[in-house]
Amino acid sequence: MNLAGLAQDPPGWLREGGPRGDVVVSSRVRLARNLAGMPFLSRCSELQVREVADLLARTLMEVAADGEKLYLDIDAADPLDRELLVERHLISRQHAEGTGPRGVAVAEGETVAVMVNEEDHLRAQVLGGGLRLGECYERIRRLDDALGDRLSFAFSGRFGYLTACPTNVGTALRVSVMLHLPALKMTGQLERALRAARDMHLAVRGLYGEGTEAIGDFFQVSNQTTLGKTDEQIVEEFVEHLAPPIIDYEHRAREALLKNRRVALEDRVHRALAVLRAARLIGSEEAMYLLSHLRLGISLGMVDALTLSAVGEVALLCQPAHLQRRLGGDLSPAERGRRRADMIRGRLEPG
Amino acid sequence: MNLAGLAQDPPGWLREGGPRGDVVVSSRVRLARNLAGMPFLSRCSELQVREVADLLARTLMEVAADGEKLYLDIDAADPLDRELLVERHLISRQHAEGTGPRGVAVAEGETVAVMVNEEDHLRAQVLGGGLRLGECYERIRRLDDALGDRLSFAFSGRFGYLTACPTNVGTALRVSVMLHLPALKMTGQLERALRAARDMHLAVRGLYGEGTEAIGDFFQVSNQTTLGKTDEQIVEEFVEHLAPPIIDYEHRAREALLKNRRVALEDRVHRALAVLRAARLIGSEEAMYLLSHLRLGISLGMVDALTLSAVGEVALLCQPAHLQRRLGGDLSPAERGRRRADMIRGRLEPG
Repeated sequence: MNLAGLAQDPPGWLREGGPRGDVVVSSRVRLARNLAGMPFLSRCSELQVREVADLLARTLMEVAADGEKLYLDIDAADPLDRELLVERHLISRQHAEGTGPRGVAVAEGETVAVMVNEEDHLRAQVLGGGLRLGECYERIRRLDDALGDRLSFAFSGRFGYLTACPTNVGTALRVSVMLHLPALKMTGQLERALRAARDMHLAVRGLYGEGTEAIGDFFQVSNQTTLGKTDEQIVEEFVEHLAPPIIDYEHRAREALLKNRRVALEDRVHRALAVLRAARLIGSEEAMYLLSHLRLGISLGMVDALTLSAVGEVALLCQPAHLQRRLGGDLSPAERGRRRADMIRGRLEPG
Repeated sequence: MNLAGLAQDPPGWLREGGPRGDVVVSSRVRLARNLAGMPFLSRCSELQVREVADLLARTLMEVAADGEKLYLDIDAADPLDRELLVERHLISRQHAEGTGPRGVAVAEGETVAVMVNEEDHLRAQVLGGGLRLGECYERIRRLDDALGDRLSFAFSGRFGYLTACPTNVGTALRVSVMLHLPALKMTGQLERALRAARDMHLAVRGLYGEGTEAIGDFFQVSNQTTLGKTDEQIVEEFVEHLAPPIIDYEHRAREALLKNRRVALEDRVHRALAVLRAARLIGSEEAMYLLSHLRLGISLGMVDALTLSAVGEVALLCQPAHLQRRLGGDLSPAERGRRRADMIRGRLEPG
């Protein structure tokens, strides 16, 4: 696995999809850990930061399962490659734009990614298609155990795992799902649904996490509180009680659209597919907007011969860094628009 | 020929097209005449208006060539039928919305239409596809001669033919062309071109004549002055000197687009066709806007298997009255949007 390879193909988990994939694009579980006996990053010396990076890079490659695995030095990486990793949800924008020795370990078909020296010494995530938080949690727990066998993490008997930001203290576990909520948007119920989510102490963010806008009706919904609950409680509560009402809300909105505004919905879906298949120039925002409508149409059985994962792959590959990496270098926005349209036409053309 | 028939099919001249059809959709020559010894309409008694209508209806049917011909009593006509005639350019909106005994004679595949009791007692027009004003003029002159053999028209040795509105006095001849000027619009030169036309004493109007908006980049351009010139001079000047600069202007704009913005142009054309072929709901304005782009694409050889006349036919048939007459009655705007989209998809579907 190398970066050039990443740009060519979407990750396997995206292709495979998963349970409730009509609404839940992906699931993610994240852990934050800091090394015992080492200051938080903001208080580390330059030497210490380097030391943390070296130790964790080595350890991560040791514990990673055999097969394709990769450690990338983000500090040394090309800006386009950093952007590529953000587009693939393997690192945060903050990590891409940070300074100093830092990196990311990627393994198991990109379902495992561990940022080194982002906000904490170590931030691990396990990703999967559809709603599969339980499975993601089991896998991150095993990774945490393996790391814990080799490293000593900062832990307080009173607070739990210690993290740079107090909001993560405790189990330091975050669970999130990427939801596709186009029907709530179309029926004007989105704000109400997101308010309800926030009332359940969930954080709602855009496609690329904190501070990003919702693009194409995709929303990242995550738990907020990590203190005073066990990991298992957090995951179970999210899967059993927090995610289902939002998913159901979207389902009900889809049913209402099918019942009351079927033709308008078909119009939107078929126009979206037609424009994606016809455009010679297209921006990434318009593409995401149209792909969102197409995704809804596929979920509702209105479009034959295209799958949700095909749409997910196109959505990933039409991002600027992917586009440029696939084509081997910097492109002007106009040229990107042309190449994006070519790529989309090629991928969505009728059989 | 009857009204129900009109709603089903576009007129033959539209199907046939004509010279310079890439820019000139149609040509039209119009004559205004008033009966000698009868007041202008504004000063006629009710009885006199009726008398004029009866006399002219009879005479028009006598002089009309054998074959399909039709005299329609506009006063008695259903509002939807009146609208249908406006959409086909057989009567003016003013005539449709007028009061009192009035009508229209239609003959020769709708290339000849004579309004009775519009603003003048008689307003004849001859229409044809493309740039063919000379031919239209010859035909209207023969019609005028034939009518002149049977009727006596108000004529002054000093002013020429007398008309209700002083701007028509003289030869009372109007020549006009319907131009498709999308490239001037796209390159931001439209206002300049239309100003140049006005500087040449041409009147520029929208798709349905005076007071109507330009829809889909279609403009009706006509001569303004009728006094002090012979009919032949008016036609020749228009054909030789007035129309060509505007047509050339559009041609140059198309060449510039092909040279400098080819991909953006192809993008617009292919998106337009794709949306027309995919939409399940569409308004007449959006349809005209897209058909305009499609027409340009066909003119430039960017679209295979579709003809300018096919686009012209769709543009005509997707107007509200045509749509409703074809489907046999009043439809709500939402239902029209659905039926319009169905009709367009059916007509433009890939071979």
